[in-house]
Amino acid sequence: MARVYVAGVGVTRVGRHYGRGLLDLAAEAAFRAIDEAGVEPGAVVVTNMLASRLQEQDSLGAYIASGIGLRGRPALHVEAACGSGGAGLYTGYAMVRSGLVDSVLVVGVEKMTDYPTSTVTSALAQAADAEYELFYGASFTGLNALMMRYYMERYGVDRDTMSEWPVMMHENALINPYAQLRRRITREDVARSQVVADPIRLLDSSPIGDGAAAVLLVSEELASKLPEKPSVYIAGAGAATDTVELGSREALDRIPAARMAAEQALRAAGVRPEDIDVGEIHDAFTINAILLIEELGFAERGKAARALAEGRFRPGDRPTLNPSGGLKARGHPVGATGVYQVAEVAMQIRGDFPGVRVEGAETGIAVNMGGDGSTLTAFILRHA
Amino acid sequence: MARVYVAGVGVTRVGRHYGRGLLDLAAEAAFRAIDEAGVEPGAVVVTNMLASRLQEQDSLGAYIASGIGLRGRPALHVEAACGSGGAGLYTGYAMVRSGLVDSVLVVGVEKMTDYPTSTVTSALAQAADAEYELFYGASFTGLNALMMRYYMERYGVDRDTMSEWPVMMHENALINPYAQLRRRITREDVARSQVVADPIRLLDSSPIGDGAAAVLLVSEELASKLPEKPSVYIAGAGAATDTVELGSREALDRIPAARMAAEQALRAAGVRPEDIDVGEIHDAFTINAILLIEELGFAERGKAARALAEGRFRPGDRPTLNPSGGLKARGHPVGATGVYQVAEVAMQIRGDFPGVRVEGAETGIAVNMGGDGSTLTAFILRHA
Repeated sequence: MARVYVAGVGVTRVGRHYGRGLLDLAAEAAFRAIDEAGVEPGAVVVTNMLASRLQEQDSLGAYIASGIGLRGRPALHVEAACGSGGAGLYTGYAMVRSGLVDSVLVVGVEKMTDYPTSTVTSALAQAADAEYELFYGASFTGLNALMMRYYMERYGVDRDTMSEWPVMMHENALINPYAQLRRRITREDVARSQVVADPIRLLDSSPIGDGAAAVLLVSEELASKLPEKPSVYIAGAGAATDTVELGSREALDRIPAARMAAEQALRAAGVRPEDIDVGEIHDAFTINAILLIEELGFAERGKAARALAEGRFRPGDRPTLNPSGGLKARGHPVGATGVYQVAEVAMQIRGDFPGVRVEGAETGIAVNMGGDGSTLTAFILRHA
Repeated sequence: MARVYVAGVGVTRVGRHYGRGLLDLAAEAAFRAIDEAGVEPGAVVVTNMLASRLQEQDSLGAYIASGIGLRGRPALHVEAACGSGGAGLYTGYAMVRSGLVDSVLVVGVEKMTDYPTSTVTSALAQAADAEYELFYGASFTGLNALMMRYYMERYGVDRDTMSEWPVMMHENALINPYAQLRRRITREDVARSQVVADPIRLLDSSPIGDGAAAVLLVSEELASKLPEKPSVYIAGAGAATDTVELGSREALDRIPAARMAAEQALRAAGVRPEDIDVGEIHDAFTINAILLIEELGFAERGKAARALAEGRFRPGDRPTLNPSGGLKARGHPVGATGVYQVAEVAMQIRGDFPGVRVEGAETGIAVNMGGDGSTLTAFILRHA
């Protein structure tokens, strides 16, 4: 099977863009990716979670494609809650591989500010099971808190050890020009921050922000015709799902869909976990990152937090995880996050990521998650 | 490129399923398709428009896949308003062609009853442009009414001639066991029915209903291994878009994205419009059908309604259009409609459609539309 190349990427700063709407944000990211690639995409996949509730706008595929001057192109909208970006990239990757089109612009966009927090959190909660979780009063953070509490009790991990993750994320984001939270925090700051749903505290949680990211995927044939052949390709992709409802899962300390998605991607790429130089993984809450590190085989079961405390996964270590600052500090414009991750890993491999750089990175992974583990995607990117 | 086969289809009756939810409806259609195919799908694409607003449930890919016993499989949700079904089929078709999976269950589902009509119509209106149309007081039916008025004035077509379409649809649906509206109507009934947005009357409009449809697509390799090799394959697929906002379109009497999508599908299949035996086309309102007939090349510009009045497109004629009764009378569970269409065309070609049958049909087309012309898909199905 011929390769699919990343011919261009574009991201906006994540933050409170009070003066800007969905289209404006998507256009900024899209135009950067198109400019980089030097080619207009043959189709558009838009990834978004909240527009149906917040902007009351559906048909985002046609809406964004027409809005950025690509009227006519095949375009559609893919949704998998916070995992929308990865699900849309999986779709775009399939479209290029299928030969139906020779290039696809995957553009993730989310506009979360400008609304009352209660409206936004109620829309975000739709990532959980409406009938079996939300209607009974569970909150989305509360469900993640169950997983965090269980993990800490089962493996004897204390608050300060868990806090190593958000501390590292804020450190990494310091020099990332498009990160939402660029300030240093300490473990004490985490421990003293407001309780959201015990044991999850404010500084365990990703912030609410607006943003857009775009990745332009092209076929091998088209890549060879470009003025400059892209230097990064998708070597493997994986996707897997689990019940939306947490209570029906295998275990509270597992995200089996992550393992399945990663295994598909690694197998397709012919890569082992120890070959990976850099990863961008889904850390909407601290516990997500800890569990994903274990599912991806970067640490043994129950030992991810301790590995972090011992200095693993920081810049200089292999793999370096979330040099962008992750969802925690780069920010989490939910439906766009998975696209940010792939754009960031591509930039690391190209050597032009504008923040913390993983020097000489040849192979990277991006892992995006919907809900608290219901939709997982994994992409292995490699230097061509 | 190897063929993609339709290995199984399943549909539920369209109507007011007060006792049944999204998952229950989706499961009925999905299990029928899986039983027919005799193979469990490797991935799931769920197509739906309204669940985010009405059921307050996102992540429908994982939700439905897990709910029907396919936990673990890659699954995602595709949305393009009323064109969601076709957009999801396009995605599933790409996934099988790409080689990422060897089979995909595309399941469309919509649950529209059990809610106040104002809530449902407000959610449906999200198929229009929120900022440039809805915020200024335009209704979705009103926008379609502009197109109908313009067409009737420009081409000198009267009310009774336009009414031929809904009359034929109700006639066709009479013996379709899963149609929502199985009663005969006359041109007088249409003319005397309630005005929704002049000149659109109640009987120009598709009803609100619940339903689910499923199509199981398999690769040529897998098709050859099945106990019974499927007799229908997708010979060509096309997708195209236009602005969501009607005011920015080329003309009020054109749906250029329909022509583009159909041309892609016809070219890929090596088929001309005159080769088509049966079509299922998108008639949320009478004017949609009239314009699509012209864009697809089945009638000259401005002459579709007159062709109908002269008896064209009825059972016995080639092509026979909407033998199911179409959106008008089979019903229009919006996000599922495009999947119904492909399932119906497949059954026509197999020769086991349970309603009006197009005897000896070898080649068919299914055309699904999002909004009033923003997202169009076309599929050519052929007898293997």
